[in-house]
Amino acid sequence: MGNQGNGQVQTQFLSITEDAGPFSFASGASLDSVTLAYETWGELNADKSNVILLFHALSGNQHAAGFNDGVPGIDGRWTEDCHPGWWDAFIGPGRALDTDHFFVICANYVGGCYGSTGPASINPATGKPWGSAFPHISVSDVVRSQARMLDVLGIEKLHAVVGPSTGGLACLSFATLFPERTDLVIPIATGMRTTVLNRIFLLEQILAIETDPNFRGGEYYEDGEPPALGLALARMISHKCFVHLDAIERRARRDVVQADDHFAWYSVADQVESYMLHQGKKFVKRFDANTYLRICEMWSRFDPVREGGAENLSELLERSRQAGHRYLVFSIDQDYCFYPEEQAALVRALKDAGVSVMHLTVHSDKGHDSFLLEPELYTPHLNHLLIHGGPAGGYEAD
Amino acid sequence: MGNQGNGQVQTQFLSITEDAGPFSFASGASLDSVTLAYETWGELNADKSNVILLFHALSGNQHAAGFNDGVPGIDGRWTEDCHPGWWDAFIGPGRALDTDHFFVICANYVGGCYGSTGPASINPATGKPWGSAFPHISVSDVVRSQARMLDVLGIEKLHAVVGPSTGGLACLSFATLFPERTDLVIPIATGMRTTVLNRIFLLEQILAIETDPNFRGGEYYEDGEPPALGLALARMISHKCFVHLDAIERRARRDVVQADDHFAWYSVADQVESYMLHQGKKFVKRFDANTYLRICEMWSRFDPVREGGAENLSELLERSRQAGHRYLVFSIDQDYCFYPEEQAALVRALKDAGVSVMHLTVHSDKGHDSFLLEPELYTPHLNHLLIHGGPAGGYEAD
Repeated sequence: MGNQGNGQVQTQFLSITEDAGPFSFASGASLDSVTLAYETWGELNADKSNVILLFHALSGNQHAAGFNDGVPGIDGRWTEDCHPGWWDAFIGPGRALDTDHFFVICANYVGGCYGSTGPASINPATGKPWGSAFPHISVSDVVRSQARMLDVLGIEKLHAVVGPSTGGLACLSFATLFPERTDLVIPIATGMRTTVLNRIFLLEQILAIETDPNFRGGEYYEDGEPPALGLALARMISHKCFVHLDAIERRARRDVVQADDHFAWYSVADQVESYMLHQGKKFVKRFDANTYLRICEMWSRFDPVREGGAENLSELLERSRQAGHRYLVFSIDQDYCFYPEEQAALVRALKDAGVSVMHLTVHSDKGHDSFLLEPELYTPHLNHLLIHGGPAGGYEAD
Repeated sequence: MGNQGNGQVQTQFLSITEDAGPFSFASGASLDSVTLAYETWGELNADKSNVILLFHALSGNQHAAGFNDGVPGIDGRWTEDCHPGWWDAFIGPGRALDTDHFFVICANYVGGCYGSTGPASINPATGKPWGSAFPHISVSDVVRSQARMLDVLGIEKLHAVVGPSTGGLACLSFATLFPERTDLVIPIATGMRTTVLNRIFLLEQILAIETDPNFRGGEYYEDGEPPALGLALARMISHKCFVHLDAIERRARRDVVQADDHFAWYSVADQVESYMLHQGKKFVKRFDANTYLRICEMWSRFDPVREGGAENLSELLERSRQAGHRYLVFSIDQDYCFYPEEQAALVRALKDAGVSVMHLTVHSDKGHDSFLLEPELYTPHLNHLLIHGGPAGGYEAD
């Protein structure tokens, strides 16, 4: 067994409501019919004990590895940027998530715009896109919907749950909502609560879309244009946190000011501006503003204690201790999206709760994006823990 | 002489085109009639040698000290927030800019919205507000227009030019465009060029206004509403850099989520969001979006070398050396608007050019706003240099 690298891969679709009935969101809303779009790599073993569930970041999708040049029903949003898997360098034979050993699953979040049921999907009751009527979502909704997906696939317990960036929020949430359903928990460059800075940036992004006259509360699918400028501005606001500013400046030097980089009053006259605007415009082609709003809100409101129905953090993490979880937490030293202090706080809380945890900081001038670009910084530790289980008896817990 | 504290003060108006003819902007545009709104404190001495020119920050105005409850022609923009002077704690008898000794002048920037000729002023040719037809402005325009103001007032040479925050850009520009017209140069928590981060934040703010359907290229004075949400969002984007995040969180705890904190889709549910939104909405009442765009652009494009017509930085600062300027540069250790590295770079360049300079860092948990809130951190050094001239023979130049 074992593939030679990652070739073509296709998105698959699965109903999480066919057997289990309507899906209820944390908000109280409920949908009779929810489909999740997902992809898999490697082969499921006989006792289904070799599964790694991977959560994507906010604007990511199910296509984590290999090449996929089309997803049915997505129209133009599956742009060339989407064709290569976003974590291809981390998934495959001999890679960090080694498909010679493991069966890796990644699903588009409920509320997403890449094939899972979301605001752009058709509301069966009206025959029209959901738009503003689609429920607000929380991280716990993402996690509970994917737990249902595992049920449908007959997978009782994961070997590991992995989540980089905002995927790490879902990773922690999965481990504490369904402690009995995984052994290893691997949050990468993420946090355990939203910071003031996160909430401010996210509000800015939400208001950027709300300000766009084309947004119209979310009812832009049927006629008129989507809120392209608002969504582009939102993406620009977030992009500066993902990429180290030095890298933005380096990349911008290769950029040229475009002829159409002007607005009603302002004209771009600087490569950095042009580069940022280009990032924003490129994103608009591949993303839906209604989904973007929901994931911004989901992140901004994230609270694993409340969403996990715990009284406090210790009570929440006690679930991981009882389940015998082993955590591997990565920090990026120059991360301006999820600061190293945030992972340090998570690690401290885990240790206080008596949970086995190893914490590593990678040093990179690529900023938060390091988790996408530098597999060599992460692979040996991921490999070792996933294949060999890490040190015998787990990591030391203080 | 000498006032007892700062009492009532009135804005005065002065034409800089009546004698000198049309005012030409760096962009090439020209206006036949330009008025500057300004205020003064202290008394001008007989030989007019005791003058301090103070440049305000981007969204500031001429009303730096005392109490002023109305400026003719400003309509509702002169809100209660404007009534106390923005640097009242720094100006007055015995204060940092000691009005027992000095005559302090502060003028609203050309292009401003507090009484100086700007986009909201009436274009005499049409009888209507300038709107989008008002020229783009640069820091050198601000400086040259205020040099004309000094001409009209018969002031040949300043004792000192002072500029906190973005006022510091004008301060440096004044010193190098008119080196013979000042002795002391006091830039506070400022920079000498725009950083990548500055330009990104400024572009975000510009696009926030451009996205607002009420902006209409700047033609919103005569009918329709001004771009309030876009301007509020712009202010929110900048506000987070001015105030330390811990302080935002502290202040937000006293805030309550307002009943009207909801938009077409999103509803605010968090005190930090509510606080930020409140800052944005409050600002909209007192500021004009067309002025805001121009000052954002002015800051983003600031380049003292180009605007000063010099070949490079050394050549520019050589002017300060020849004029025998003494610089006093302040940094704030936890400043996320103008980072301490930026003042360090200015100081290094001044020393390299053989200019006399003293550099002090104040330590504050108030962030950039320290320059408004903590006079005790700045006053002794300002006093000493302004009144006693600092150490005999100037500061040591490396």
